[in-house]
Amino acid sequence: MTVQFDRIALIGIGLIGSSLAHDIKRLGLAKEVVIATRSAETLKRAEELELGDRYTTSSAEAVKDADLVIVSVPVGASEAVAKEIAGSLKPGAIVTDVGSTKASVIAQMQPHMPDNVHFIPGHPLAGTEKSGPDAGFPGLFAGRWCIFTPLEGTDEKALAALSRFWETLGSKIDVMDPEHHDKVLAIVSHLPHLIAFNIVGTADDLGTVTESEVIKYSASGFRDFTRLAASDPTMWRDVCLHNKDAILEMLARFSEDLAYLQRAIRWGEGDKIFDLFTRTRAIRRSIIEAGQDVDAPDFGRPHTLDKKG
Amino acid sequence: MTVQFDRIALIGIGLIGSSLAHDIKRLGLAKEVVIATRSAETLKRAEELELGDRYTTSSAEAVKDADLVIVSVPVGASEAVAKEIAGSLKPGAIVTDVGSTKASVIAQMQPHMPDNVHFIPGHPLAGTEKSGPDAGFPGLFAGRWCIFTPLEGTDEKALAALSRFWETLGSKIDVMDPEHHDKVLAIVSHLPHLIAFNIVGTADDLGTVTESEVIKYSASGFRDFTRLAASDPTMWRDVCLHNKDAILEMLARFSEDLAYLQRAIRWGEGDKIFDLFTRTRAIRRSIIEAGQDVDAPDFGRPHTLDKKG
Repeated sequence: MTVQFDRIALIGIGLIGSSLAHDIKRLGLAKEVVIATRSAETLKRAEELELGDRYTTSSAEAVKDADLVIVSVPVGASEAVAKEIAGSLKPGAIVTDVGSTKASVIAQMQPHMPDNVHFIPGHPLAGTEKSGPDAGFPGLFAGRWCIFTPLEGTDEKALAALSRFWETLGSKIDVMDPEHHDKVLAIVSHLPHLIAFNIVGTADDLGTVTESEVIKYSASGFRDFTRLAASDPTMWRDVCLHNKDAILEMLARFSEDLAYLQRAIRWGEGDKIFDLFTRTRAIRRSIIEAGQDVDAPDFGRPHTLDKKG
Repeated sequence: MTVQFDRIALIGIGLIGSSLAHDIKRLGLAKEVVIATRSAETLKRAEELELGDRYTTSSAEAVKDADLVIVSVPVGASEAVAKEIAGSLKPGAIVTDVGSTKASVIAQMQPHMPDNVHFIPGHPLAGTEKSGPDAGFPGLFAGRWCIFTPLEGTDEKALAALSRFWETLGSKIDVMDPEHHDKVLAIVSHLPHLIAFNIVGTADDLGTVTESEVIKYSASGFRDFTRLAASDPTMWRDVCLHNKDAILEMLARFSEDLAYLQRAIRWGEGDKIFDLFTRTRAIRRSIIEAGQDVDAPDFGRPHTLDKKG
C-alpha cells in the first residue's frame, strides 16, 4: 500500500480509534500517526500497544501539521474537541469523525471549524460490544458501510481522498443527509441497543426470579440481548441525548406495536401473533442474503459434543 | 454407551425431536427408535435423514410397546397428542415432553394419562432459530439445562431413569414447580423472543426508512434481534397463548421500565441513562463467567480481513 496522508491524528483511542490505528499501520497509510486522548492512563495503554508514533493528552498538540484528523470520541464530547483543535488545524486538513449521530455532531463542531479545513462528518457502521484501546483490531471495517453526511459545498477532492482512505480499510461508502442518517440509525442501531439495555435492566429487577436463575438459563434467548447491553455506557448515553427526536419517534412506534402484540396475547388472538412472527422471518433471510450476518445457527456459537456449560 | 430403553418413541421430529434422534443413535441409547409426525412430508424427510428405525403418521401406533415416549410438538398440540396416545401406552412407560411452557402442558396432558404410566413434564433449554427435521444435530443438549417439573407422587425410579437419559446427552438437570418454571422462562426466553419479533416488525413498517436500508445497515445492532425473530412462528404463537399470565406480567414490567428510560431521554437525564447502561454490563460478565455465552466480541462472528460484505 502507499502512504495516503503524511500525518494522521487520532483524537480518541477507544474501540474505533485503536482499530483505525491498527489498520493505518498494517496498510502503511501514513508516515506518522499521532494519538491523543484526555486520559493519561488510556494514553499509556495505547503506547504500550504501540498503536501510534507519538502520544499526547493534548488534542491541539496532536492535530498540528496533521493532514487527516479523525475524531473518535463519545458524541457528547464533540464540541469540546472542536474548540480545542480549531486553532491548531493545518490549512487544507481533512477533519472527520466517527460519531453515531450526525446532526448533533455537525451542530457541535461546524461552528468552530476554520474555513480553510475540510470538515466531513462520517460514521463507520462497525464495532463490537467491547471498548477501550485493547478492543481494537485490524480489519474491523472490512466489508462494513461507512456513511458520510457532507455539508453543502464540500470539496470533491477532499471527499474523494477520505473515501479512498475508508475504502482501503475495506469499507463501502454511502452518502446521505444528516437527518436521514439519524433516522436510519435510530431504527437499525439506537433502538435495538436501548431495548437491549432495557430488557436486561428489567430482568435484573425481578423479585420472583432470581438474578442467578436469569444468568443460569440465559441461553434460552436472554443472552443475545446482553451483548448489546454490554456496550460502552458513556457512548450510548451520549447517543440517547444527541439523537433524541429520532429515538423518541422510534420508541413510540415500538411501544405502539408492542401494545398491539400484548393485546393479541391477552385476548388469545393467535392469528395476529402468527402473522407477525411469520413476517419477521423473511427479514432475517434478507439480511443473510445481503451478507450482513452469518447463516450458521445461533450465530455460529460453539455447540460441541464435549462442551462444558 | 449402553441401551437405556428398549424402544423410544419420538412424537414430533422438528429441531428438538431430530436432535434427540441424532443423539440416541450416536450414543446407542435404544434398541429401536420409532418416529411419528402428522405431516407425511416431514415424516418422509425424517426417513431420508435416517433419524429412526420405524416411521408412522400415527402417534398411537408409535407409542405401542415404547418404554420412553418424548413429545416434541408445539405446546398447543399437547392435548391432541395426549388423547391420541393415551390408549396405546405401555404400562410402566415414561412419557415426557420438551415444551417451553409447563403449567399448560400439564393441564393439557395429565388428565389423559393412564395411572400406570409415568408422566414427567420436562423442558430442555436448548435450540437454535432453525426448525424442522433438517435443523437437528448431535450434541444440541450438551452443556445445557434440562428442567423437570414433576407432579406430586412421581416415581423416583422413573425420574432417575429420565434424568440419566438427559445426562447422557450432556444436559444438567434442574427440578422446580411448573409455575416457577413458567415465570423464569417468561423472562429469560419468552420476553426476549417477543421483543425481538416486535422490533423486527416495527422496522418493517417504517415509511421514512426503507426496508433495504434496514437490511443494509443491520450489522449496527438490529441483526442481533432478527435471529430470535426467525424462530418457528407456530411454536412461538403457542408459547404466547399458553404462558399468557407470566408473559403479560413481564411485558408490563418491561414497558414500565421502557417508559422510565424514554422519559429520561426526553428530559435529558444523562445520569439515569448512564446508571442503567452501567448496571447491565455486569450481567453480561456474569453470564460469560457462568459459561452461558462466548466471550468473543460480536458472538465470535467472523471479522476477517478478506471478508466480503
